[in-house]
Amino acid sequence: MDISYRLADIAAQFGGRVLGDGEVRISQITTLEKAQSNHISFLTNSKYRAQLAHTSAGAVILGEVDAAATDLPRIISDNPYAYFARVSALLNPLPEAKPGVHSAAIVGAGAQIDPTASIAAMAVIGDGAVIGAHSVIGAGCCIGAHTVIGSHARLYPQVVIYHGCVIGDNLIAHSGAVIGSDGFGIAMDEGHWIKIPQIGRVVIGNNVEIGANTTIDRGALDDTVIEDGVKLDNQIQIAHNVRIGAHTAIAGCAGIAGSAVIGRYCLIGGGARILGHLQLADHVEIAAHTLVGKSIREAGSYAAIFPFSKQEDWRKNAVHLRHLDDLVGRVKALEQEIESLKRK
Amino acid sequence: MDISYRLADIAAQFGGRVLGDGEVRISQITTLEKAQSNHISFLTNSKYRAQLAHTSAGAVILGEVDAAATDLPRIISDNPYAYFARVSALLNPLPEAKPGVHSAAIVGAGAQIDPTASIAAMAVIGDGAVIGAHSVIGAGCCIGAHTVIGSHARLYPQVVIYHGCVIGDNLIAHSGAVIGSDGFGIAMDEGHWIKIPQIGRVVIGNNVEIGANTTIDRGALDDTVIEDGVKLDNQIQIAHNVRIGAHTAIAGCAGIAGSAVIGRYCLIGGGARILGHLQLADHVEIAAHTLVGKSIREAGSYAAIFPFSKQEDWRKNAVHLRHLDDLVGRVKALEQEIESLKRK
Amino acid sequence: MDISYRLADIAAQFGGRVLGDGEVRISQITTLEKAQSNHISFLTNSKYRAQLAHTSAGAVILGEVDAAATDLPRIISDNPYAYFARVSALLNPLPEAKPGVHSAAIVGAGAQIDPTASIAAMAVIGDGAVIGAHSVIGAGCCIGAHTVIGSHARLYPQVVIYHGCVIGDNLIAHSGAVIGSDGFGIAMDEGHWIKIPQIGRVVIGNNVEIGANTTIDRGALDDTVIEDGVKLDNQIQIAHNVRIGAHTAIAGCAGIAGSAVIGRYCLIGGGARILGHLQLADHVEIAAHTLVGKSIREAGSYAAIFPFSKQEDWRKNAVHLRHLDDLVGRVKALEQEIESLKRK
Repeated sequence: MDISYRLADIAAQFGGRVLGDGEVRISQITTLEKAQSNHISFLTNSKYRAQLAHTSAGAVILGEVDAAATDLPRIISDNPYAYFARVSALLNPLPEAKPGVHSAAIVGAGAQIDPTASIAAMAVIGDGAVIGAHSVIGAGCCIGAHTVIGSHARLYPQVVIYHGCVIGDNLIAHSGAVIGSDGFGIAMDEGHWIKIPQIGRVVIGNNVEIGANTTIDRGALDDTVIEDGVKLDNQIQIAHNVRIGAHTAIAGCAGIAGSAVIGRYCLIGGGARILGHLQLADHVEIAAHTLVGKSIREAGSYAAIFPFSKQEDWRKNAVHLRHLDDLVGRVKALEQEIESLKRK
Repeated sequence: MDISYRLADIAAQFGGRVLGDGEVRISQITTLEKAQSNHISFLTNSKYRAQLAHTSAGAVILGEVDAAATDLPRIISDNPYAYFARVSALLNPLPEAKPGVHSAAIVGAGAQIDPTASIAAMAVIGDGAVIGAHSVIGAGCCIGAHTVIGSHARLYPQVVIYHGCVIGDNLIAHSGAVIGSDGFGIAMDEGHWIKIPQIGRVVIGNNVEIGANTTIDRGALDDTVIEDGVKLDNQIQIAHNVRIGAHTAIAGCAGIAGSAVIGRYCLIGGGARILGHLQLADHVEIAAHTLVGKSIREAGSYAAIFPFSKQEDWRKNAVHLRHLDDLVGRVKALEQEIESLKRK
Repeated sequence: MDISYRLADIAAQFGGRVLGDGEVRISQITTLEKAQSNHISFLTNSKYRAQLAHTSAGAVILGEVDAAATDLPRIISDNPYAYFARVSALLNPLPEAKPGVHSAAIVGAGAQIDPTASIAAMAVIGDGAVIGAHSVIGAGCCIGAHTVIGSHARLYPQVVIYHGCVIGDNLIAHSGAVIGSDGFGIAMDEGHWIKIPQIGRVVIGNNVEIGANTTIDRGALDDTVIEDGVKLDNQIQIAHNVRIGAHTAIAGCAGIAGSAVIGRYCLIGGGARILGHLQLADHVEIAAHTLVGKSIREAGSYAAIFPFSKQEDWRKNAVHLRHLDDLVGRVKALEQEIESLKRK
């Protein structure tokens, strides 16, 4: 709680160039507007530059372009936003979890819990599951039989991982996330749906974060795969047999339908929908609330959003969408009429 | 189970004017169609007026305009819908929860549980958390360290509230709601995402209801704020640093992106999306499934919905949206042609 | 783990015609691409027919049309996809759950747990609840007071069912599903929302599957009803008083607003939204991400999707949607001009 660092110590740890007094002590990071003399702040968006003149921060993190924009003690970084992230992590370490298994947790037969791991109260660890070194399994989490979780995982309360899944190191999973539930596989037979057993797994790489109430279904036959460094916000639905390429980030409420293959370093906006069996190239960006109904082979930004307007204007305009083909036909007819008039 | 009230007693408690026999005893409230002689019903939508003639209800709640529409014993109210709500609450009191901590709950060091509060089985209360008078914490709920919950809260099973949040009085939170999970904050650095610690809180006012599986992220630096009287339906995603103004109601599956500021008394439709860093004025209504991509400074109703049609009609019409700019250009060209023809 | 069957035994059990060696032993089912000699595979989509020539599968399931497409041992079926589902279930039986109540589960007063049912650790069964024969209640599930669950249910960890609900036989419910939470019922009165008690139930038929983190609200006065054979994917929101007709299947992230009545054998696409108080006929298909704002009386496929394009193309085209009515007016004016020019 009383952590503090000299500005020079921070720069020694994370690099960057110190300008001004390197002896100033920093105990927290905050916005330019709210910062006090023992705080460091940062400027990563030029629209806040005016606040630099009025901040009470003890120091600031700036990009090279803003190096001379203040006399405050400062660290100059090539990437001030990432620098801010690192300093914040330094100043706000996660609470230590006590190693060991809480007396009110249940551990199945043959489960291997690393002695440095922490299993909280009400957690249920299935038979033969493996929990790696320094991993923290929060209260009420359920880990299925024979699921393997790597080291340094942090599962917040009430994460569920079904049986037989494989998770790399450094997983962060927020409450209510469900990993390994059955994919939506049904076959119609004489008026009744028959369930298709979902016998694949979910396989997750290293350094993945999964938001609250996000769901990732297990594969039908093959696996659902989340590659290294993927970041998933809250309430995302990942269907069976999807593959998400490394370092792709997906915003809240997006849905990826079955067997879609998303490239590396993609950015998928909130509430976007990717239909099943499609492929997205690397470095594709999808705008929020956009449905993607065909594969995208080329990097770039894509969108499909109906522009909002006042209800009465929307109503007046939108009604024509049901007659757009007619309208195009009328324009074509006009063009022909004009041509024939001109020819006269 | 055998609660009943005289019609006159109800009016004495909630106001309104009794017409007809005030002695009729009422034990439940239901629809005009299903009501029996010991039931009270209500008319709040003129399209059900015909049912008034055929109902078997013992009494009805009516607006002033319908005061003479039946001879049944009745209460006339300025706001029959709100009156219905109050009578229903009278006739359907919530089950009492037994005060005290269940022997199968876990309470952390220094937590303060009001003696009138009830902590159900499998709940886990973090160190230093505070649970106010008459609050009911359902089975399996997890309350983070140092989180403060006011009085008369009702948390249904498996609500998770992370550490350090502050909740007012009369919270209702439904199962699977997650409050205080990390916001989606990441910074790209040399091909890897770095996590930005989320050190703000969630601060919730009084009289807030939160639906099942709704998620509210904690702030990155400052807090996420839900003001008094906000009502959130199921599966809503509230991102970090959002502020929702008092008495705003949001329907299911809506998503509010980071740092958006929503005014007071707004109505946000189901599945609507508000992009980040936007501001909505007070008394703004957003239609279901509408994406709002710019701030709205003026009260009123806004929409952006593609009208549905039969698949083949949709296909025929929608294809032209990719060429709408061309179409407008063709119309402009036609206008110029016409002008020049007319000048001849 | 060492289950295997002769091909002829499979056909004896499920029907179909065996061609080639019926003695081949089958221990698993997989894709044509990955199959090995002790595996059976299947062809249900003609675009994979080329793989038939190269597969190492020991046997395949084929439709009548492909009966001669390979010399491999094979079963010919009228519905190879449903046949695949049945064979997969045969080869991948669910793990047996040990009958009885785990010592770390809590069972309320008067609850009736069939002796063949299995209640896992950390589950909480409410007073007077009924759990039918062979039903499996997963870890951490909460079953509300007086809720009745039929036989052969399988609830994965952390399903919540509120009080007083009625569930048929063979329910499958995935983790995080919430059944019976309050519908979103509020009445405005003098600047404050008043809660409308939700006193209906959720009533679910036989053979229903409910995906992870899906929510089904209880009715306000009458019940919310899910008929036999309905299949719900993950993160679906079903509001109060909805009725879903038998054998309807709904894909992930869809939302059905209050009092909507969906017919039998409907297919609702991912992220689709059905507004409140609407009716959909039987055999209606709704495309993904489509909002339905009016009742649909006729079977068929319906859609409303804005076609995506590159961001700059989208921007160029979409801007005209706010002026579509003007554009139609301009076309009409042009038509009149042409008419008058032609008359000259």
